Amino acid sequence: MATNGTIDTLVIYGVGLIGGSFALALKKAGAVRHVIGIDRSPAAARRALELGIIDAVGIGPEAVKDADMVLLATPVAQTAGVLAGLLPFLGEDAVVTDAGSTKADVAAAARSVLRDRVGQFVPGHPIAGRETNGPEAAVGDLYVGKKFVVTPLAESRPEDVDRVTDAWRACGAIIHRLAPEEHDRVFASVSHLPHLLAYALVDDIANKPHADLLFQYAASGFRDFTRIAGSSPEMWRDISLANGAALLGELDAYLAQLALLRERLAAGDGAALEAVYGNAQRARRNWIEAIEAAETPAPQDNAE
Amino acid sequence: MATNGTIDTLVIYGVGLIGGSFALALKKAGAVRHVIGIDRSPAAARRALELGIIDAVGIGPEAVKDADMVLLATPVAQTAGVLAGLLPFLGEDAVVTDAGSTKADVAAAARSVLRDRVGQFVPGHPIAGRETNGPEAAVGDLYVGKKFVVTPLAESRPEDVDRVTDAWRACGAIIHRLAPEEHDRVFASVSHLPHLLAYALVDDIANKPHADLLFQYAASGFRDFTRIAGSSPEMWRDISLANGAALLGELDAYLAQLALLRERLAAGDGAALEAVYGNAQRARRNWIEAIEAAETPAPQDNAE
Repeated sequence: MATNGTIDTLVIYGVGLIGGSFALALKKAGAVRHVIGIDRSPAAARRALELGIIDAVGIGPEAVKDADMVLLATPVAQTAGVLAGLLPFLGEDAVVTDAGSTKADVAAAARSVLRDRVGQFVPGHPIAGRETNGPEAAVGDLYVGKKFVVTPLAESRPEDVDRVTDAWRACGAIIHRLAPEEHDRVFASVSHLPHLLAYALVDDIANKPHADLLFQYAASGFRDFTRIAGSSPEMWRDISLANGAALLGELDAYLAQLALLRERLAAGDGAALEAVYGNAQRARRNWIEAIEAAETPAPQDNAE
Repeated sequence: MATNGTIDTLVIYGVGLIGGSFALALKKAGAVRHVIGIDRSPAAARRALELGIIDAVGIGPEAVKDADMVLLATPVAQTAGVLAGLLPFLGEDAVVTDAGSTKADVAAAARSVLRDRVGQFVPGHPIAGRETNGPEAAVGDLYVGKKFVVTPLAESRPEDVDRVTDAWRACGAIIHRLAPEEHDRVFASVSHLPHLLAYALVDDIANKPHADLLFQYAASGFRDFTRIAGSSPEMWRDISLANGAALLGELDAYLAQLALLRERLAAGDGAALEAVYGNAQRARRNWIEAIEAAETPAPQDNAE
């Protein structure tokens, strides 16, 4: 790593939306000199090279030997396998980070595989997604004004935490910090459960005998409600399993809420329904207003 | 009504998004001469007049005496009361229609109130909505390329069905036809249930002790998933109650689906989760592609 904070060699595992956008954003900021991409799909790696997202295709884990930073942008269930593969080639000064949507499982995988070198690992999660995938979906401004949640391990080397947050800051992200377990409880509630609910609704409708008629009348509200059901099934299978305990807890709370609403609906209790709907409308409006107020000045790093 | 299909006098009950946009669209098309607006809020009626949405404010139901068309754009629970009020003043040649999101209850209200004059009533539902309300939200192109579902009663006079569909066609809408009960089953599935689910999720989160922390990390996926929870609680209370039986049926099917997913999640059955997620992703993609294919040429009336 150059003394001015520029990354000399960055290796990204997974050259799709998340990894590819990280590389493009760092290049745009002049914060990286050389990017090597590794992907289980040779076609995706070639495409990323053609698009200028990466400067070279890494054939195997030995590609990390000159890296000063490695980003894992692969489904979270692959973390242990990828770390085990690259460990023999990892330099003492390199930092490894990830972009997975769950953090406690990633922390556990890192501890179990990296052992006495786990201090070189700094888990993190950029809060930016789209329902598109692959190198073509990567853009240099994906992270501008978005949150990056760093979830350092107790063992993470402080200077490595800084290197990782500096890189995401160079991508335009706003840095937040949570403990891995806290991160997972928060995202089970506001991200993982909504994904499961959206997938469940579309699957439910698609399996009905008159699904074609139903879809014919689905409109913009349905489209927005189910947008997240366009996300990668493999990625969300992994997230659901990795954060299973927290997700089950949130699902059970929601099922209890639906059972209550069902009772009120069956009883024709309009006042109770309106109270729930009104409370939700107010809470959402307050949330949107708070987001918009926060976004009015150019977003700055104000939460670390 | 002029012989060329132009409406001489239109009376709209409710001068907000739906009623106001209908008036603006007909004016834009040169399909109406004079619009009278009636609203329970005198301020809204005045505002609609200032904005040129209506040409006069009707003080009471006697305003319908010269109408050749009356549109009810009020919450569905008010249908019977509004019809009872206007019936004594309604001309023999006038047609009354509505824009409510439920149809079986509206049909029942019309039969019970209008009795031997129910043939003058043609229920309908424009499939266009936003989470904004009031005269300021009204726009002349809200219905362009959107569906209007006419749900005629067996008693509806055929020429009145044509007058209503001609008016919506003049607004740019694509005309579809369903029986009232069929309409309600379809919309319970693709509209009413998603609204209930979105309200329930936001209310659930808002009531948690750490709601502020959770909302802080809610991102664009959550925003889209819950957009419909920004809709009017009063309107959706009425819809939920009016279509209660169909909505309960859809909710129960969905709860059964969630119970199954919960079991799979608790068992760590990744393959089963991925199958559901993958089926949903495929079904949604096929649906979006079908919509986009249908929208590629200028939308024409092709479904009646």
